[in-house]
Amino acid sequence: MGHEIWAIGVDLGGTKVKAAAVDAQGAIRRRLEEPTDVDRGPDGITAQIARMVSELRRESSPSLPLGAGVGVAGQIAKDTGVVRFAPNLHWREVPFRDRLQAALNLPVVIANDVRAATWGEWLHGAGQGIDDLICLFIGTGVGGGVVSGGRVLSGCSNTAGELGHITVDLHGPPCTCGNRGCLEALAGGWAIARRAREAMNDVPAAGVAFLKAARLTGAVTPEDVTTRVVAAAAQAGDPLARLIVDEMARALIAGCVGLVNAFNPCRLILGGGVMEGLPELLPRIEQGIRPAALNAAAEMLSVRPAELHNDAGVIGAAALAFQTFAA
Amino acid sequence: MGHEIWAIGVDLGGTKVKAAAVDAQGAIRRRLEEPTDVDRGPDGITAQIARMVSELRRESSPSLPLGAGVGVAGQIAKDTGVVRFAPNLHWREVPFRDRLQAALNLPVVIANDVRAATWGEWLHGAGQGIDDLICLFIGTGVGGGVVSGGRVLSGCSNTAGELGHITVDLHGPPCTCGNRGCLEALAGGWAIARRAREAMNDVPAAGVAFLKAARLTGAVTPEDVTTRVVAAAAQAGDPLARLIVDEMARALIAGCVGLVNAFNPCRLILGGGVMEGLPELLPRIEQGIRPAALNAAAEMLSVRPAELHNDAGVIGAAALAFQTFAA
Repeated sequence: MGHEIWAIGVDLGGTKVKAAAVDAQGAIRRRLEEPTDVDRGPDGITAQIARMVSELRRESSPSLPLGAGVGVAGQIAKDTGVVRFAPNLHWREVPFRDRLQAALNLPVVIANDVRAATWGEWLHGAGQGIDDLICLFIGTGVGGGVVSGGRVLSGCSNTAGELGHITVDLHGPPCTCGNRGCLEALAGGWAIARRAREAMNDVPAAGVAFLKAARLTGAVTPEDVTTRVVAAAAQAGDPLARLIVDEMARALIAGCVGLVNAFNPCRLILGGGVMEGLPELLPRIEQGIRPAALNAAAEMLSVRPAELHNDAGVIGAAALAFQTFAA
Repeated sequence: MGHEIWAIGVDLGGTKVKAAAVDAQGAIRRRLEEPTDVDRGPDGITAQIARMVSELRRESSPSLPLGAGVGVAGQIAKDTGVVRFAPNLHWREVPFRDRLQAALNLPVVIANDVRAATWGEWLHGAGQGIDDLICLFIGTGVGGGVVSGGRVLSGCSNTAGELGHITVDLHGPPCTCGNRGCLEALAGGWAIARRAREAMNDVPAAGVAFLKAARLTGAVTPEDVTTRVVAAAAQAGDPLARLIVDEMARALIAGCVGLVNAFNPCRLILGGGVMEGLPELLPRIEQGIRPAALNAAAEMLSVRPAELHNDAGVIGAAALAFQTFAA
C-alpha cells in the first residue's frame, strides 16, 4: 500500500473475528478471519485482535494506520466505547475501546456492527453520495441503520436503527426480544426456520416436496440453513415453501412501507444472507412499497441491493475510523 | 412587546387559520383565529393571512417582526417553500413562500404543520433541552415529527415523520392512504369512529350503554365527536367502548414500541385531541412500552404529554422563523 493513508477495520461477532487493512476508498488490501475466542473473555479477544492487527501491519504498509474501527455485535456507549451488552460474547460493561487502544497503541473507535455495516454501504457501497438512506440487513436476525440529513442516526443511547424490532403485526408471533410481531419475528432467518417447522407439522402432505428440496440441498438439520432450504424448495415450486416466502415478503413490504413513511429515505438498501439467498425478494419488495407508501414519502425512493456483502462490517468500521481520526 | 424581538407564527389548516405574535421564549403575545377561506384559493388565503398579520403588527409592537413561520397541512418543498400538495386546501404546486413574502414584505419560512408543532414542543413545550425525541399527535389523523441528534429530521423530500403511517398490523383494516393496518387506521379519531360504528352494528345489544353515553355527551352524529363519545362511554364503564379503547391502546403501544426501537428517543411526547380526551392512555402506553421495547432502546426513555396543545402550531412556526432568520 506504499505510503498511502489506511485504517484497520474489525468486525467482531460471536463466531468470527474479521480484520482488514482498508484504504481511504474503502478497498480491502489485506484481510484476516478467525473464529472468535469467546471463552477467553474480553482480555483474550483483545489479545486476539492485537495479534491480527500486528499481522496486518507487518504485511501491509510501511506507513502507520490512521486508527482502527471496530464493529461489535452489541450495545455500545457512544462517547466512551464501552461495550454495554454483547449477548453473543457474554460481555457486560466492558471498556473495550480503552483496552484495545492500549493493546494496539492506535486510536480506536467502537460501533455496533450493523451500524458499522451501514457506514460501509453508505460511504463505499450502495449508498454512495446519498444523504438519506436506510440499510436493512435480513439475515438470521434483522438489523439496520439509518442515515438522515447526511448523518448516521445514533439516538439517545446509541441504539437508533434497531429496525428488525418495529412491530408489523401486533397480533403476530412472539419475538426473541419480548415483543410480538416484530419484523424480525416474521422475516428473520430464525423466524423463517420456525415458520417452516410449524408449517411442516401442520401440513405434512404438502411438506413432501419441501423436504425433498431440503434433502437436495444437502441440508442435514437446523436453523442456520433453513432459509436456504426454503428458498430452494420455493424455487423448485413447492407450494408450502412458496407460501412461506410470500408471507415473509408481505411482512417485509409492510415493514418497509412503515420505514419509508417514517424516515422518507432517498434509498432503501436491502442486504443480508436471506436477501442474497432469495434475490426475487428485492423487486417484490420494491413493487409492494410503491402503491402502499405515501406518494410524498416514496416519490424519490430507489430500492437497491447491498453491495459490500460480508465485507460491509470491516469496510464500514474502517470508514468510521477515517471519519473519526482523519485530520 | 416594547422593542423586543418577536416573530409571527401561522398555522394554516383546512378549516382554521391561526396567527400569533410570539416572542423568543415561545410566549404568545397576541393571537387571531379565523375560518380558512378555502374557496378563494391561494391568492385569497395569502390576502387573508396578510390582513391578519397587519392586525397583529398594528396591535403588537413598534418593532418589526423578525419574520413569519407558517405551518401548512400538506407537503412542502424544503428549499423553495412551495406547497407541493395540500389536500384540505385543494392546492398543488403553489409557490406559497414567495407569494406570502411579497404580500407581507417579511421573510417567510414554510413547513408542514405537524413538523411545525414538533418544533414548538421541542423548543418551548415538553421537549425542551432534549436532543432526541419523537412527537406523536393523535387526533382525527395521526402525525408526528422526530428530532434526532438535535435536528428535526426532514428526509429526502421533506416528509420524514409520517408516523401515523407505520404499519402495525399487516392484516389490519385499510387506511385512507392505501396501506392497511397503519397506526392511524387503528388509533386515529376517524378510525375509532369507524370501529365504533362497526362494533355497534355487530353487537347491537352491547351497544346500548354505549349509545346512552353518546346521547349524554350531546353528540348528534358524526366522526369528529365520536372519539369523545367512545371516551365518555368507556369512562361510564360500557364494555364495548372499553374494548375499543383497549384495542386502540394496544395499537398505540405496538406502534410506539417500533418507533422507540427504530429511533431510540430520550423522550416520547404524546399529544392531540384523542390523547387529551383519553388521559388514561398515556400511562397505559408507557407501561406497555417498557416490557416490549428493547432495553437498550428504552432505558433512557421518558413518556410525556404534549404541553402546548392547540398552540403548538403557531408557537412552533414562530420558533422556526427564529431559527431561520435570527442572526
